[in-house]
Amino acid sequence: MILSVIGLGLIGGSIALDLKKRGFVSKVIGVDNNTLNAHAAKKLGLVDELMNLDSAVKASDLVVLAIPVDACLTLLPQVMDLVDQQIVTDLGSTKEQLIDSLINHPKRKQFVPAHPMAGTEFSGPQAAHSGLFDGKCSIICNPEDSDKKAVNIVTEMFHALKMRCVYMDAEVHDRQTAYVSHLSHISAFALSLTVLHKEKKDKHIFELASGGFDSTVRLAKSSAEMWTPIFKQNKKHVGKVLQKYIDTLQQFKDLIEEDDLDGMNDLIYEANDIRRVLDQKERNEQETIENSDKIRNRA
Amino acid sequence: MILSVIGLGLIGGSIALDLKKRGFVSKVIGVDNNTLNAHAAKKLGLVDELMNLDSAVKASDLVVLAIPVDACLTLLPQVMDLVDQQIVTDLGSTKEQLIDSLINHPKRKQFVPAHPMAGTEFSGPQAAHSGLFDGKCSIICNPEDSDKKAVNIVTEMFHALKMRCVYMDAEVHDRQTAYVSHLSHISAFALSLTVLHKEKKDKHIFELASGGFDSTVRLAKSSAEMWTPIFKQNKKHVGKVLQKYIDTLQQFKDLIEEDDLDGMNDLIYEANDIRRVLDQKERNEQETIENSDKIRNRA
Repeated sequence: MILSVIGLGLIGGSIALDLKKRGFVSKVIGVDNNTLNAHAAKKLGLVDELMNLDSAVKASDLVVLAIPVDACLTLLPQVMDLVDQQIVTDLGSTKEQLIDSLINHPKRKQFVPAHPMAGTEFSGPQAAHSGLFDGKCSIICNPEDSDKKAVNIVTEMFHALKMRCVYMDAEVHDRQTAYVSHLSHISAFALSLTVLHKEKKDKHIFELASGGFDSTVRLAKSSAEMWTPIFKQNKKHVGKVLQKYIDTLQQFKDLIEEDDLDGMNDLIYEANDIRRVLDQKERNEQETIENSDKIRNRA
Repeated sequence: MILSVIGLGLIGGSIALDLKKRGFVSKVIGVDNNTLNAHAAKKLGLVDELMNLDSAVKASDLVVLAIPVDACLTLLPQVMDLVDQQIVTDLGSTKEQLIDSLINHPKRKQFVPAHPMAGTEFSGPQAAHSGLFDGKCSIICNPEDSDKKAVNIVTEMFHALKMRCVYMDAEVHDRQTAYVSHLSHISAFALSLTVLHKEKKDKHIFELASGGFDSTVRLAKSSAEMWTPIFKQNKKHVGKVLQKYIDTLQQFKDLIEEDDLDGMNDLIYEANDIRRVLDQKERNEQETIENSDKIRNRA
């Protein structure tokens, strides 16, 4: 199978690397309108060959779009216009608008909307690396609107990346990612801004920051190019979720100001239940990797 | 030198372990009114001997309090009443109220208020481990109010833990930790609560959470026993900082709802400046460890 990857950053580069390395595809064609990135990806061995969009789509069996969600909204219909038998998937963090953009397209069934839940705060082909997706979960949206064969191939692609697949409605996906992904990014951006503003007066404030601060603020390194379009496309859900987060913070603030120790304890005990969730996640990741290895060894 | 550690949890246990291992003290006496924790600490080899408070203070040269800040407010004056020539330090996250509690105490000069900026989201003697403090920063407050000799010994103790020391006013300490430590914890608790509430309706929501979510929410595992008293004692600063954080989140929400892409980009670019801070922190930690190793090799 020949794969074209459009967008050779962290996500596109890492997918190209592991699908070739693990034998899921025999050749990877790279497409990136940023020529610096494109040549870096070639030099780093992430792709075998660079092509323009038309030639790449025509030469491949599977096309993966790994570009910011605003660019995807423009480019996906163009890619679908070029498609003959090819299967196309994207990896974007928002799904409803993208699916709507293709609603009456004659090749809609060859498109499988997807979202692998993996990434880091870094970007560009230099940040791409093997194992980025191992053990994580990938979402495939509205599978009933795609050819069964197309869904199967994209599912197998994620299995080759050692991921497990979950199928869900695009609206549910967009709402849930607002909670578990988009909110985390905004909380980190806002935390960074709050302390950076203070640094203007208290120059040495970061002397006191320890590992806990680093952990909560890490995502504030993430790029505006990727995240602004996500917040825009998902504003309906992100707005609501942000309001709930602000309300919870306000509740904490009120309890602190009222010296309500029992109230604070109750909230913290409740929040501690995240231990159950994080422990379960760790077990799921371990299990996903083990299952993938078993399947590979059998093959 | 003989050390008594009062409170044998993560912090007290880890300090006991490394000060003995690195030869800064010849013996560690442990004190904990939770007998389960005390016996666990002895069994884990964190302390050489268990004693009651009176005997421990009398038998030692250096006394370290590693207990929650509310307990410290009660216990520190009692410890100071027992003191003859001993030097006493605490490791709590708030400093103004504690220092005020001792303002007219005849032994005040033998007390050195300190706060090592290190920890994890876990607690108890089982969580104690070697290297917890390596490379981090420790704060010593109002050093002019302590004997020079006492400050020197506590400084040397932190150097033996491979830490660098920063001296500052207690009021500045409490304000700055509200920004770089207490806020991070509340942001994580609130994030955890927001998503856990949603889980009640969307059972599989955590399927979609990836490493970014884990990172921002990790501190929500932290214990109420430790954190409620910190928020109470530091409410003046924590309240103000929380308000600034809420305002910044509200600003994000407004920009998203107004489709103000340029405004969002500007905020994210500004937040990205945290890269500079985190890179600098990493260099500082590396340098602190190298300097500590040089000093130890010379000795």
